[in-house]
Amino acid sequence: MSDSSLTAGSTSVRDLAVAARASVLSLKRSSHEARNQFLFALANGLRDQTEAVEAANAIDLAAAHAAGLAPAMLDRLRLDAARIKAMAVDVEHVASLPDPLAQRFDLRALPNGLIAHKRRVPLGVLGVIYESRPNVTIDVAALAIKTGNAAVLRGGKESISSNRILMQIARAALVIAGLPSGALQFVDTIDRGATLELLKLDDLVDLIIPRGGAGLHAFCRRESRIPVVTGGIGICHLYVDASANLERALNVVRNAKVQRPTVCNALDTVLVNARVANDFVLALAEQLSQDGVEFRCDAASLDILRPLNVGASAAGDEDFDTEWLGLTLGIRVVDNAEAAMAHIEAHSSGHSDGILTEDPAQAEDFLARIDSAAVYWNASTRFTDGAELGLGAEVAVSTQRLHARGPMGLSELTSYKWVIEGDYHVRA
Amino acid sequence: MSDSSLTAGSTSVRDLAVAARASVLSLKRSSHEARNQFLFALANGLRDQTEAVEAANAIDLAAAHAAGLAPAMLDRLRLDAARIKAMAVDVEHVASLPDPLAQRFDLRALPNGLIAHKRRVPLGVLGVIYESRPNVTIDVAALAIKTGNAAVLRGGKESISSNRILMQIARAALVIAGLPSGALQFVDTIDRGATLELLKLDDLVDLIIPRGGAGLHAFCRRESRIPVVTGGIGICHLYVDASANLERALNVVRNAKVQRPTVCNALDTVLVNARVANDFVLALAEQLSQDGVEFRCDAASLDILRPLNVGASAAGDEDFDTEWLGLTLGIRVVDNAEAAMAHIEAHSSGHSDGILTEDPAQAEDFLARIDSAAVYWNASTRFTDGAELGLGAEVAVSTQRLHARGPMGLSELTSYKWVIEGDYHVRA
Repeated sequence: MSDSSLTAGSTSVRDLAVAARASVLSLKRSSHEARNQFLFALANGLRDQTEAVEAANAIDLAAAHAAGLAPAMLDRLRLDAARIKAMAVDVEHVASLPDPLAQRFDLRALPNGLIAHKRRVPLGVLGVIYESRPNVTIDVAALAIKTGNAAVLRGGKESISSNRILMQIARAALVIAGLPSGALQFVDTIDRGATLELLKLDDLVDLIIPRGGAGLHAFCRRESRIPVVTGGIGICHLYVDASANLERALNVVRNAKVQRPTVCNALDTVLVNARVANDFVLALAEQLSQDGVEFRCDAASLDILRPLNVGASAAGDEDFDTEWLGLTLGIRVVDNAEAAMAHIEAHSSGHSDGILTEDPAQAEDFLARIDSAAVYWNASTRFTDGAELGLGAEVAVSTQRLHARGPMGLSELTSYKWVIEGDYHVRA
Repeated sequence: MSDSSLTAGSTSVRDLAVAARASVLSLKRSSHEARNQFLFALANGLRDQTEAVEAANAIDLAAAHAAGLAPAMLDRLRLDAARIKAMAVDVEHVASLPDPLAQRFDLRALPNGLIAHKRRVPLGVLGVIYESRPNVTIDVAALAIKTGNAAVLRGGKESISSNRILMQIARAALVIAGLPSGALQFVDTIDRGATLELLKLDDLVDLIIPRGGAGLHAFCRRESRIPVVTGGIGICHLYVDASANLERALNVVRNAKVQRPTVCNALDTVLVNARVANDFVLALAEQLSQDGVEFRCDAASLDILRPLNVGASAAGDEDFDTEWLGLTLGIRVVDNAEAAMAHIEAHSSGHSDGILTEDPAQAEDFLARIDSAAVYWNASTRFTDGAELGLGAEVAVSTQRLHARGPMGLSELTSYKWVIEGDYHVRA
């Protein structure tokens, strides 16, 4: 059974999930030492087999080249010695984090003398569906085993050779650590039906984690019978209040827009209070146009920018509902914070939205009212990230409301159980 | 729109859910005072309209009588003045609980100076599907509004007249409190297709809560596109260790079995250590047979009970995988705690399982290893209940692993958001 997942075509996705499920009891009982031993063995395996990983990756790269993949995609697919070393370091960082399964919380002494508390336990079997980047294979393997979960991994077809050897290294590390090698399963086929098959295995898989773009997330949500971590879309806003320090606010808006424009926590629309709109919008456009940003403007901001040559155009019907994922920024002038919040409530995807203001009452009103996964006062939306918010590792960013919302760390890959201790207590 | 849900047939379930969804923003911003004002108005409405509720209930009772419903079902359906008063008292109790939306937690000061914490927010729209007991209508209305959620209620066809007037009272209470009357929607049809329609509205409804038996839970899980609170099945175990105080252990086993045998946290199987089996099984059978309990025994316990006339028979193939919901008890003699835990891991539904022992190390081993929603040391399984565990109110008992596990109180009807405060922080 241990190598069943490595034989393309001969094993169904259900068989893989059955094998993963069979390891769940053993993983639940595993020690933190054993789970960390896996992580160190995995890091060592990556270092020891760097050349073999590069060779497997070269096969993927050659096929991708022949298929005419864009340079950006080729870059995402590439594993060189430096990247493999970075993967090993990341795995060792996960080992350094405290045991998520050691957490006890919500202790309560009940009036009848019962003592109750909660303890973290693994979720069970994770189904992880991801796209071209092969490093996700190692990332998921590390986070799953650290939290005592089994996983069925479904990678992109472009990276199948790379993923195959990375999974061999991961499964060898399971054996070294004395953990069941069935705990990590790899769907080794390029058949697209396999993803759909995985999404239907609600009797074997506890949670689906898509790692990729909005299209992958929407597909999983539509087809899955298993709960899916929803995420992937961030239409993010910053509102610049009249009381904001405009120079510092401009620096925050710029950071949110240009520091890494291709990710979901990057800024999409800036809302500017009318009382400061003239000064702020002009300064913003002058600064950000030098970064290559183009602007989609409402009538008021377009009036302000018309004299300048900064790539400003009138916003179309859908522009304020678009996640740009690039160097485009929507600008709208609003009369007051109320209008800004109404705009955000109408257009936000519920990912990350913030206010820039010197007025604490106005800030608190915004933070209380805007119900996005992360709401900010005087900070860039780019901080919606597990590492930035101190979670140690990031599994995903959730924009759903159940189970976990916002950046998900190791704890969010767990469930809990109630532990109740008595003195032969009976219920009256 | 406010009365649309009261007109049978003319409005689709989608229309009702759209109306519920339209109230979500207003509910999110509602004060705790307004939500409690709703609860007091609801309690007063129930008291003021006791006779009208009884009259509507009489219509349901007459129809149920004519349809030949069993006496137990008729009793579940009945609303008399005392029960209506009890409903009002329960609603006032919910009002007395602290505001779940005021909770702030997980405060963290990050190395870069950002301050982050989490705040509770409503889930959005609940879909609640329940069977004959009309008091669930009021229970759900109270819990949903207390937590700032809208709800679409789908009651049983037997209680439709009762539910209709209860919903009129609840919606009148929303108006008195200045909350949107669309927040509570009632599916006023006996057409079974309406339930299926509700389960598919994943763009409008955030969580499905089934309140009823295992069949209803299975149906919802199979058909829903919306996350479902899984529960309803408890195959519960107690293991009597050799070191247990046998007299006190017997009292606990008896309580778990007979105090209320028809519910999911009642005991189904007792596992007895072989070293004390003879004494314990004899005493247990003598005691519980007087309570009307019959026994399904493995070979060893049947040998012990054969001399007695206590309604003991050999357990069949599926008996240790059966939730009895009545006065039947499985008995199995095990060599040691290891064998007891292996039995529980093979047969438990993951609801409530416990150990009775004087050995703390043995108890901790059991509590660490057995991964049920609630695990017990020296207490009856009957304590798996929101009120008993200090949650103030119980929404459901979850046996799923995502979002919430075990008894769910008000907090478990909420999500959270991250609130991040800075000094114009930008990401490096």
